[in-house]
Amino acid sequence: MKLKVTQTNLNHALLAVSRVANNKGTLPILGNILLKVENNLFSATATNLDIGITKFIGSKIEKEGKITVPSGLLSSFVASLPSEVINLELEGNKIKINTKQYDSVINGISAEEFPILPVIDKGQSFSLPAQDFKKGLNHVLFAASNNDSRPVLTGVYFYSKDGFIYLVATDSSRLSEFKLSKTNKEFKILIPASAMNDLVKIMDDEVETLNVVCDDKQVLFKFTDTELISRLLENNYPEYQTLIPKTFSYKATLLKTDLVNAVKISSLFAKETAGSLNIEINEQQQEVIINSLASQVGENSARAKARVIGNGGVTLNSRFILEALNVIESNKVNFYFNSKTEPVLISDPNEPNYTHIIMPLKV
Amino acid sequence: MKLKVTQTNLNHALLAVSRVANNKGTLPILGNILLKVENNLFSATATNLDIGITKFIGSKIEKEGKITVPSGLLSSFVASLPSEVINLELEGNKIKINTKQYDSVINGISAEEFPILPVIDKGQSFSLPAQDFKKGLNHVLFAASNNDSRPVLTGVYFYSKDGFIYLVATDSSRLSEFKLSKTNKEFKILIPASAMNDLVKIMDDEVETLNVVCDDKQVLFKFTDTELISRLLENNYPEYQTLIPKTFSYKATLLKTDLVNAVKISSLFAKETAGSLNIEINEQQQEVIINSLASQVGENSARAKARVIGNGGVTLNSRFILEALNVIESNKVNFYFNSKTEPVLISDPNEPNYTHIIMPLKV
Repeated sequence: MKLKVTQTNLNHALLAVSRVANNKGTLPILGNILLKVENNLFSATATNLDIGITKFIGSKIEKEGKITVPSGLLSSFVASLPSEVINLELEGNKIKINTKQYDSVINGISAEEFPILPVIDKGQSFSLPAQDFKKGLNHVLFAASNNDSRPVLTGVYFYSKDGFIYLVATDSSRLSEFKLSKTNKEFKILIPASAMNDLVKIMDDEVETLNVVCDDKQVLFKFTDTELISRLLENNYPEYQTLIPKTFSYKATLLKTDLVNAVKISSLFAKETAGSLNIEINEQQQEVIINSLASQVGENSARAKARVIGNGGVTLNSRFILEALNVIESNKVNFYFNSKTEPVLISDPNEPNYTHIIMPLKV
Repeated sequence: MKLKVTQTNLNHALLAVSRVANNKGTLPILGNILLKVENNLFSATATNLDIGITKFIGSKIEKEGKITVPSGLLSSFVASLPSEVINLELEGNKIKINTKQYDSVINGISAEEFPILPVIDKGQSFSLPAQDFKKGLNHVLFAASNNDSRPVLTGVYFYSKDGFIYLVATDSSRLSEFKLSKTNKEFKILIPASAMNDLVKIMDDEVETLNVVCDDKQVLFKFTDTELISRLLENNYPEYQTLIPKTFSYKATLLKTDLVNAVKISSLFAKETAGSLNIEINEQQQEVIINSLASQVGENSARAKARVIGNGGVTLNSRFILEALNVIESNKVNFYFNSKTEPVLISDPNEPNYTHIIMPLKV
């Protein structure tokens, strides 16, 4: 392997693939990045066996070859180099990296030891507007569970129904759904949320089209110079649609910043109760009133002007409210509920495709 | 206690004093801030028994009184409030805090339980240009030791000699000295570096004059609306002056950014040797060459153009070099040494008051 590449191009690729390299695992090879020149293409690949990311990198190739090198050292080193041309040359298992001011040698491990990423032979393929998909992921990812005890809830449910594509995530206390574009395909797959987090992070705002190929076991996302492949979770996703109330008796619409500030300040007083806040709406006052429950440290009551229908209250976890509000891009937000035991809806008046529900806390 | 204060004023004061409040200690009262209205002055005070900070706060006072309240809750709460007028009112041990949108009650602990800060009855007092003192502290504080096994090295040595004031800190591997203004006072005190770190953080760039009062046991720093009092360390500071070489056989002067970058990149390859870097200067090439020692991960050689006298090399810890360079404000830096076993001087060509020496590593 011998080539010239700009620091900018190499750094950009290494930043993306090094996300999935794991220096702390039991298999040292998974902490390495595979650098490969084959068929006149230079690529960098890393994998944690669940997810694999490959970036193709523009370069001036002189000689083919491949090697794996420690992800941490290579990424930090290239990130620190000045923005100029880098010469890479493989000698045995050592890769020589030279610039005007730096002469370096990094010891690698043979590429033969690197795991082979799966290939999807038969499966269906389709394409999506990339930025819509990214926006949808941003609206649902935070609602997925981090807890491996119910693996199905650690996934993002990506499926089609009645001609539309949906993204869904839930940790059983709250649920996010985002409706995407029309489709004539039929599919239902469950992708690990961690893979979708990686996809969001490495997909630049300039990407226009995202190509998807999937079978029963894995899914491949392709855009511009990047490929991300992930294994799928076993798809027995809960029938969630019936959980979303169709109508609401109590409705408040208010400035998003007012609700965010009131919840943040009230939550300072709610640490003993793990963030429980009592939210009341008052039609006469046209106000939302947030009370932290009286505790050892003190108590707090916050008010915000709102357009209100009905008089009622509900108790919610402050973190769940803030996370649901965090993805709303409008300056206003809807806060709708029925009783103290039915799901609360938080939605964006300008984004009908976003549906977020939170289960109230029992008090 | 009853008063009106702007959120800006109260927040600024709480940010400063809460630095020394300790919520994790065994004495809960030390996690509290003392709020006091006395002699028509409103003040906030916190202490960790070694250091005490008091801020006087502009306010509209209606009634005297005092109380202590949890530092974390009060500071976070006031920091989150909108920038408007806050009403404070004490009722028993509860402090009521009201703004347009928020009604809060924080449970306090009686002010009688708060430790009384020491008073310096007799002692000498003098004043200093505040920003010079701050600059001096910034040039020496990082060289103080964090290790309590030799308490004397955890201090900043603040003394006068031959009509000048000096600040010094050393952890026995490196030493920083900064020469301050002229004085006709004679004093030698050893102040805990943590107290000087706090002083640097709370002294704004607008402060012009710093008043110092000290006796054998403690020192008081006063400026504008602030008082910081600290106990002193027992002063048996080492005779350090003889450690600083008077002349140097090997000299390099180069761009600070070139040296910083070369050291940073080389240190990536020096993790196994805890950051050991071999630095050589070459008079013929007019270059500084930094080599990381060959290791399991690889090796690196970095070059930088320099004005060089002599040909020689020395081995240093990369972190020590970077910390010494970090406080240099000029774009050039001097790197002077004699042999592989004598202290290396790192200095600023435009700041003759700063002297920093580092002991080489044995190889």
